[in-house]
Amino acid sequence: MIREHVTLKDIAKKLNLSVSTVSRALSDLPIINEETKKKVLLAAKEMDYHPNLFAKFLKTKSSNTIGVVVPDLEMHFFSSCISGMQNTCLENGYNLIICQSNESLEQEKFNIKTLQDSRVDGILISLSRETNSFDHLEQLKDHQIPFVYFDRVHENGPYSQVVINDEESSFEATEYLIHKGYKKIAFLCGPKILSICKNRLMGYQNALRNHQMDFNTDWVLESDLSRASTEVCIDNYLRLNDRPDAILAINDIVAINCIRHLKKKGIKIPKEMAVMGFSNSPVSEVIEPNLTTVEQPSFDMGKLAALRLLEEIRNPNLMSQKIFTLNTKIIERDST
Amino acid sequence: MIREHVTLKDIAKKLNLSVSTVSRALSDLPIINEETKKKVLLAAKEMDYHPNLFAKFLKTKSSNTIGVVVPDLEMHFFSSCISGMQNTCLENGYNLIICQSNESLEQEKFNIKTLQDSRVDGILISLSRETNSFDHLEQLKDHQIPFVYFDRVHENGPYSQVVINDEESSFEATEYLIHKGYKKIAFLCGPKILSICKNRLMGYQNALRNHQMDFNTDWVLESDLSRASTEVCIDNYLRLNDRPDAILAINDIVAINCIRHLKKKGIKIPKEMAVMGFSNSPVSEVIEPNLTTVEQPSFDMGKLAALRLLEEIRNPNLMSQKIFTLNTKIIERDST
Repeated sequence: MIREHVTLKDIAKKLNLSVSTVSRALSDLPIINEETKKKVLLAAKEMDYHPNLFAKFLKTKSSNTIGVVVPDLEMHFFSSCISGMQNTCLENGYNLIICQSNESLEQEKFNIKTLQDSRVDGILISLSRETNSFDHLEQLKDHQIPFVYFDRVHENGPYSQVVINDEESSFEATEYLIHKGYKKIAFLCGPKILSICKNRLMGYQNALRNHQMDFNTDWVLESDLSRASTEVCIDNYLRLNDRPDAILAINDIVAINCIRHLKKKGIKIPKEMAVMGFSNSPVSEVIEPNLTTVEQPSFDMGKLAALRLLEEIRNPNLMSQKIFTLNTKIIERDST
Repeated sequence: MIREHVTLKDIAKKLNLSVSTVSRALSDLPIINEETKKKVLLAAKEMDYHPNLFAKFLKTKSSNTIGVVVPDLEMHFFSSCISGMQNTCLENGYNLIICQSNESLEQEKFNIKTLQDSRVDGILISLSRETNSFDHLEQLKDHQIPFVYFDRVHENGPYSQVVINDEESSFEATEYLIHKGYKKIAFLCGPKILSICKNRLMGYQNALRNHQMDFNTDWVLESDLSRASTEVCIDNYLRLNDRPDAILAINDIVAINCIRHLKKKGIKIPKEMAVMGFSNSPVSEVIEPNLTTVEQPSFDMGKLAALRLLEEIRNPNLMSQKIFTLNTKIIERDST
């Protein structure tokens, strides 16, 4: 049912002004003098004028919705971040809509466009492993859409970021393995385009250097995070004359695929080769031996990223680069 | 700039009809006779009537976006359905935005509202375990928003559904256990408000009846799908004088929590108690012993649900209840 309302025309007629003057006065444009604005506002109030729904909608455009883009919903780390975000959003009367980039830059661009078209009030993103250009994100600033990175971030970008200290966490994980007595520690990295991978690799290298440990370039391999790619890396480790005695993996999924493949090859874990992961996903307690891992506070990361975004939505002056770093913790289990 | 248009009032005046009659005629409501409708349409055309922008917007509103609501993104079954949907959407130039109900009816309602506000072209939904009223979904029909259920459906609702044959799959799973020689088969059910739970329970009961097998009401327990609730059920089984020798669990997550808890209690699997799941999620290959399970084609379910929805978007006359049933397959591993 469409109801008829008082229109701009009615107000214009009453005040003997042009429709466009009334429209501009109601939009508070500087071209109209203050007295006229007052007159128009008063008349609009008296006549019970309501701007047409669509125009009003475009103007206030608070949809009470936040958009989030994650690379892969099948990774527990991201679904857990999302639970934290949703928690914070709900407490603040916001809803969350989620897009998945499938680790593709093209899809990530499409997602950003979709979220903008849906008039979200702000966007949270963790980058795809392909993302090497940032125009689709930097343009959000021009549109004054608040925007916060989490986990996989563009370090030099102009936006706030919620991260763990990847370098330090990886340093500590490597040091933990050194203290356990491992002498030949390998690092099974992920795509180096990702800052988390670069930084964790750096932490690993620093720890070895600090402890004057052997370093062998053959021990640093790169998995694309898939099972097949991880198995190729493991086969390469097993072929080496100077085999590693421990593997620090970039994340739990890679670590679990290491364990499964090593077991299939008859390698005893941790006796012949130790394996350690990153993130403490539920499956790390299901695999046997249970996986030693670095716990990342994914739920808290989601909460904090959403909180910062809500702050920026309420106060756009805050929109600037601020970095929030969360602490990690080593969870010792049976794989090391 | 807001332009003034011919209004419903103008048409009503010209035809000497009430505004609401004109509005109803243009909305093609059955209450208005065909002759009046023709007259109104003709006048609207002659007078170059355009429905107001917002109404038109609501009508044409192709955002090339599909919304999906799932209960829990941390369940692999749902993230895999989403991958299938995204695949189909991309092939058809659509994007997907995802909301999570967290198994809450209130949140599900909020999600539907958010998706409507985002002007999605259609909605795919799998119900929360709390959903016992459907007004928030049935109103979509009034707004002509195409809508398809998948997996957790409202069986008597007026919408298309993509499901597996839960009753038959569960019948076959129970029969499989009978053929393996198990004599006392328990069914660890989920919330019976969900049609999938009711139907799987029925399949289990039918299979026992068909084979003149013992049936003990103590063997049918209900988990709320959480780990804690599943552990309480297992403790109850273990306390029985007439203990089951096999458990068919409502899904893999419940089955895996069964295995973990039984192992902790020193029960040998499958020797002392067999466990079988539903869905074939990746973790079923990680747990030891590897889980025997019923493979649900989650990716294909997502694809098919999205395909049907796109059909209904293109041809609104299709919007009616059609049920698509996918086949399942038993994956035998070491837990039975």
